[in-house]
Amino acid sequence: MSDLPQFVEIHEEGPREGFQIEKAAYSLEDRARLIDALSDTGLKSIQVASFVNPKVVPSMADAEALFARINKREGIHYTAVWLNQKGFERAAATPGVHLAGSMTLYASDAFSRKNNNCSAEEMRQRTLDWLKLYDDGGIPLKRAYILTAFGCNFSGEVPLATVIDCVRFIIETCRNQGRDLPEICLADTVGWANPEDVKRRVGVVRETAPGARVGLHLHDTRGLGLANIHAALQMGVDRFDSSVAGLGGCPFAGHGNSRAAGNVCTEDMVFMCHEMGLETGIDLEKLIEAARLAEEIIGRPLSGKIMHSGSLTPYRRRPR
Amino acid sequence: MSDLPQFVEIHEEGPREGFQIEKAAYSLEDRARLIDALSDTGLKSIQVASFVNPKVVPSMADAEALFARINKREGIHYTAVWLNQKGFERAAATPGVHLAGSMTLYASDAFSRKNNNCSAEEMRQRTLDWLKLYDDGGIPLKRAYILTAFGCNFSGEVPLATVIDCVRFIIETCRNQGRDLPEICLADTVGWANPEDVKRRVGVVRETAPGARVGLHLHDTRGLGLANIHAALQMGVDRFDSSVAGLGGCPFAGHGNSRAAGNVCTEDMVFMCHEMGLETGIDLEKLIEAARLAEEIIGRPLSGKIMHSGSLTPYRRRPR
Repeated sequence: MSDLPQFVEIHEEGPREGFQIEKAAYSLEDRARLIDALSDTGLKSIQVASFVNPKVVPSMADAEALFARINKREGIHYTAVWLNQKGFERAAATPGVHLAGSMTLYASDAFSRKNNNCSAEEMRQRTLDWLKLYDDGGIPLKRAYILTAFGCNFSGEVPLATVIDCVRFIIETCRNQGRDLPEICLADTVGWANPEDVKRRVGVVRETAPGARVGLHLHDTRGLGLANIHAALQMGVDRFDSSVAGLGGCPFAGHGNSRAAGNVCTEDMVFMCHEMGLETGIDLEKLIEAARLAEEIIGRPLSGKIMHSGSLTPYRRRPR
Repeated sequence: MSDLPQFVEIHEEGPREGFQIEKAAYSLEDRARLIDALSDTGLKSIQVASFVNPKVVPSMADAEALFARINKREGIHYTAVWLNQKGFERAAATPGVHLAGSMTLYASDAFSRKNNNCSAEEMRQRTLDWLKLYDDGGIPLKRAYILTAFGCNFSGEVPLATVIDCVRFIIETCRNQGRDLPEICLADTVGWANPEDVKRRVGVVRETAPGARVGLHLHDTRGLGLANIHAALQMGVDRFDSSVAGLGGCPFAGHGNSRAAGNVCTEDMVFMCHEMGLETGIDLEKLIEAARLAEEIIGRPLSGKIMHSGSLTPYRRRPR
């Protein structure tokens, strides 16, 4: 009936996504508390912070101090984001940062120009420079992101052919450089994906790069996040980025709000997986507690559902 | 790849579900304004009010006046809910009420006992009494609801065999009485459904009653509403109950909140359908305006997503 995976791997991005987007400042103590709570849930990969220009993103200025403060557990990858060489060097110099190399491609040229002030083609060349840097540091290439893989607010529809072209660039680069294919992660950067299109785009990535693992980074901007995840699960996709409590956006900032909306909510996704009999290695009840802590820290209702309704566990325990 | 229907039929329940559950009183004027706005969207079926005991549900005491006030359009069914003969007689005496007969079965005996103070079996007998009443009034049987078809907060899991038993009761009743099979509507009354279980339960209804149309009434209690709808669409289900703006619950009433959560949000579902190329006959932009009106009337953020993020229409219109 479908190719549902048995085990689903989740990369938690809430702490970085959530606090980076907020205007208010949150204490190092609170942010570390949330990350420590997440470390206790069974999550194996948690994005802690960005090493970016503190003048541009003041909320991430203390990334080094945050990494020093959290209770780092064996077996968990604490990851970070960097956008330039200086950021990468800061991350590399910070104890406890799990360093993994990635390629970042843009399916929308307009989006690349607005965000990076240079074309998608130039960004491809830069990603080749990054590969050299990672090689010099002995850091393996783990993942290739295709951003705006489902559509773009500046240029509209993204043709399947453009996604295929990005995948081919990844394949050729790896072939030329004698590398294994990294995971190919389709990112729905601005919330365009729908379930049937997820199946279609995952399908063309599979056809173009049969040997590659496929991952998804989805935003729940328009409420289709879990429907999109389920469509991907049906295609056998078993790796997703997500944010505890749906951290990372503000769905109630008013109509026509242009702020990025949050990633798919981690605990809602874990609930769905468990209900369908798929394993995640995560303790849902502990994750719900972490989501409630996130809401308490942020100080306004967040978009996660299960954290408000509760899971079905207490009802299943009742005598019949 | 799947059995997606070409056209999806939606029964809007927001005005009845939404205002019935609210403690605050909303003016007749406001409620009529919302229904008139919905009448302008292309929806063909709108549940306006309940004819129930005004002492128990004061917010619905003026059901007759509301029906008199709304701008009733040709081609739209304005429906109502009744729970006893007195309510039915009030509905039948009110101009403009679309009268349709239904059977209501309970897959959970515990839920029936808590809600009706009598067993699921006794409720089956009462539904036979209702059929007589409808026949006397010349009112056709349109739908058979199986409540708590996915699980129950009082008794836990609902076995597939119980759903099959309910379907067989419907089939036998219709056979004995020489009736056509009504639509069989599985209701996830307390938010237990997951996408794979939707496929499974729709499948057993199809196997047991091959001739029947299947519909779904889903609540978004745990965030899986649209994933469940998409799973049902993949099974060819083409009729859903839903609520504009997600009216009908309060997702932010706090942890462990036992209030019923809202139905699936109509405009989010319509957005998903349209994005996947399925027709609904509904003008999404007008529906989003109606959802914003609902939020304005209720006076707090409602759970719908598209009403806050906007659809993709303006981005598609931009020059490339």
